[in-house]
Amino acid sequence: MAEAIILEGGRLATMRAGYGLIEEGAVVLQDGVIVWVGETSEVPEAWRGAERRALGGRLVTPGLIDCHTHIVYGGSRVREFELRLNGASYAELARAGGGIAATVAATREASEGALLTAALRRADALIAGGVCTIEIKSGYGLEREAELKMLRVARAIGQMRPVRVVTSFLGAHAVPQGMSADAYIDEVCLPTLHAAHAEGLVDAVDGFCEGIAFDTAQIGRVFEAAQALGLPVKLHAEQLSQSGGTALAAAHGALSADHVEYASDADAAALAGAGSVAVLLPGAFYTLHEVQKPPVEAFRAHGVAMAVATDWNPGSSPLGSLLLAMNMACTLFQLTPEEALAGTTRHAARALGLTDCGIIAPGLRADLAVWDVSDPAELSYGIGQTPLHSRYFGGKT
Amino acid sequence: MAEAIILEGGRLATMRAGYGLIEEGAVVLQDGVIVWVGETSEVPEAWRGAERRALGGRLVTPGLIDCHTHIVYGGSRVREFELRLNGASYAELARAGGGIAATVAATREASEGALLTAALRRADALIAGGVCTIEIKSGYGLEREAELKMLRVARAIGQMRPVRVVTSFLGAHAVPQGMSADAYIDEVCLPTLHAAHAEGLVDAVDGFCEGIAFDTAQIGRVFEAAQALGLPVKLHAEQLSQSGGTALAAAHGALSADHVEYASDADAAALAGAGSVAVLLPGAFYTLHEVQKPPVEAFRAHGVAMAVATDWNPGSSPLGSLLLAMNMACTLFQLTPEEALAGTTRHAARALGLTDCGIIAPGLRADLAVWDVSDPAELSYGIGQTPLHSRYFGGKT
Ligand SMILES: [Zn+2]
Ligand SMILES: [Zn+2]
Repeated sequence: MAEAIILEGGRLATMRAGYGLIEEGAVVLQDGVIVWVGETSEVPEAWRGAERRALGGRLVTPGLIDCHTHIVYGGSRVREFELRLNGASYAELARAGGGIAATVAATREASEGALLTAALRRADALIAGGVCTIEIKSGYGLEREAELKMLRVARAIGQMRPVRVVTSFLGAHAVPQGMSADAYIDEVCLPTLHAAHAEGLVDAVDGFCEGIAFDTAQIGRVFEAAQALGLPVKLHAEQLSQSGGTALAAAHGALSADHVEYASDADAAALAGAGSVAVLLPGAFYTLHEVQKPPVEAFRAHGVAMAVATDWNPGSSPLGSLLLAMNMACTLFQLTPEEALAGTTRHAARALGLTDCGIIAPGLRADLAVWDVSDPAELSYGIGQTPLHSRYFGGKT
Repeated sequence: MAEAIILEGGRLATMRAGYGLIEEGAVVLQDGVIVWVGETSEVPEAWRGAERRALGGRLVTPGLIDCHTHIVYGGSRVREFELRLNGASYAELARAGGGIAATVAATREASEGALLTAALRRADALIAGGVCTIEIKSGYGLEREAELKMLRVARAIGQMRPVRVVTSFLGAHAVPQGMSADAYIDEVCLPTLHAAHAEGLVDAVDGFCEGIAFDTAQIGRVFEAAQALGLPVKLHAEQLSQSGGTALAAAHGALSADHVEYASDADAAALAGAGSVAVLLPGAFYTLHEVQKPPVEAFRAHGVAMAVATDWNPGSSPLGSLLLAMNMACTLFQLTPEEALAGTTRHAARALGLTDCGIIAPGLRADLAVWDVSDPAELSYGIGQTPLHSRYFGGKT
């Protein structure tokens, strides 16, 4: 048994319910786990000999959780960004090689090492912003070997950095050129899912249900296959139109439905009934100049848990800061700062099916972020500011 | 004479005209000044013995210039942010003490030391984002001693950190409670301007021309007084309505007109005629949910130089990243990445009346930012990312 550490004299936002504030709080960590939480003056005798570290009144939150990212990808879309702002036409952009097809081609071409080097820089940026758990999706391979390569890189990040990586198999992300959606699902996506699962690379299965991607019948086949393997499901749903994805996800007891700008009141009721989380992704809304906001009032009314994530990807959301996603959720979607912080802690854990993190409570992983602010609303209020003081991951700094 | 340093093997965005790219470029620095710029293979014999530092293909830009900030202030507006998002009414916010009046009260009450400590943290955040020059305004004192205190703190930042601070006297920022606008201008603002100038605290004179602040006649009196002292002027103009401020600024040959969302085509022509810069502040546009965008097409058509700044302030723009302001200028105002970078280098220098920085050229200050990217558009493309590798300020890291 390792020595215990007492972090004392901080302002704890335990996030057990609301902020769950404890003034002049203390957390005792041992063997990577939180073993006690309370007021500094009440730390039990048993720990009196332990190492004590003064928090100096700083805010302590659960380590942040980015529950929706695409940080493993090849190439860059910066040329496309610049060409578009210089007034390039759709045809010119296509000639220059734009869109998801460009990322798929570059990802297929990239070596595993090159993908890892680039993705580690993105992971490091998130870590520097207080993130302890990162969800990473496949979906830029769209063929067996490239999808497996992406997932292996995701796993490698979790081994090379003090961060927990949760993978989602997103074979059903886009229809590759020269193939029908049905043929792709049946002949490539499903066999690849089985292969990836056999290698232990899949924690959950995701899809993109939209007119420009896959319909509910196709996604339904992916979900059936996932559930036959005992894997949880989640879905990119109702981002650009009302396509039925959220209802499908709820019917399958999905961990989450993500984006959900076009979700209806009935969709919100369905998510609530299924216990699924609505994952809000304001970075894509901001970048794509969307105007339809997710139905936050309906989610509140039905008691749907809302998470907030970066959706970091090279096209619609090159957003490298989870705190900025929180500010955007408040500014663009009118979440409260408390909802935004729950969205990157308690509710983000739930969106990943994790029950051992996301709040500060005894028995949970000692994943903590210490901030150079005292008020938890500061984390959403600042724009492009990162007041991280220190971070504990499994009890280690 | 100090030893020269050769930075070699980088991609230089000199910003002399457009990006002014030099591939495989080198910069020679000596005594805080750039003494030579060109291709690495052509560094003159004279420097062959100098210390050589490999840039490894990294992008080098002029040190960034944040030409519009309010980073010296007391108190915090985070409670107001949270109350508003929790649905507090205007009356409840007023009772809780909100708006600029709250910041004025807290700034008056704060000691010079406390103001400095808080402002240094903000300056450090900007510096960590590649900023070499920061403009800082007064305007939360609205009485003689508090205005002087703010400007002294701004000057102290320039002494305590490796950054150049340019001050603007913004006595005409808001009408203090219990006083008419005219009486405030004549009895407080103008005498304070003279006192601040006598102490050497004023580099330029600014104002806020808007229905909720001062009209053109009142700002005109401030400008007359400034020009009688030989000080350049600039103005917060056309942010919330068409109020005539931009035309007034142009008529006075202002360095810049800032915000300018409601500027007309005639205003753009007037700015062009006066050689005034239009300073775009997308952080406030984003935070205030504005819909009227600045007339970027008109500025282009008339050849008005556009700068981009954070407007960092506790109410309408708690934005601590100049790179994020660049992304917002592209995403929200459709600037090109090249315009955004010119807006924080060449054109930002012009908005401050500085002729010794903002581009990479012989004879100018050795203010440089080295980035972990190769494409200058990356600086605008990334959202909440800060790929700064290193920074030279007056030739020193
Ligand atoms: Zn996504
Ligand atoms: Zn301002």
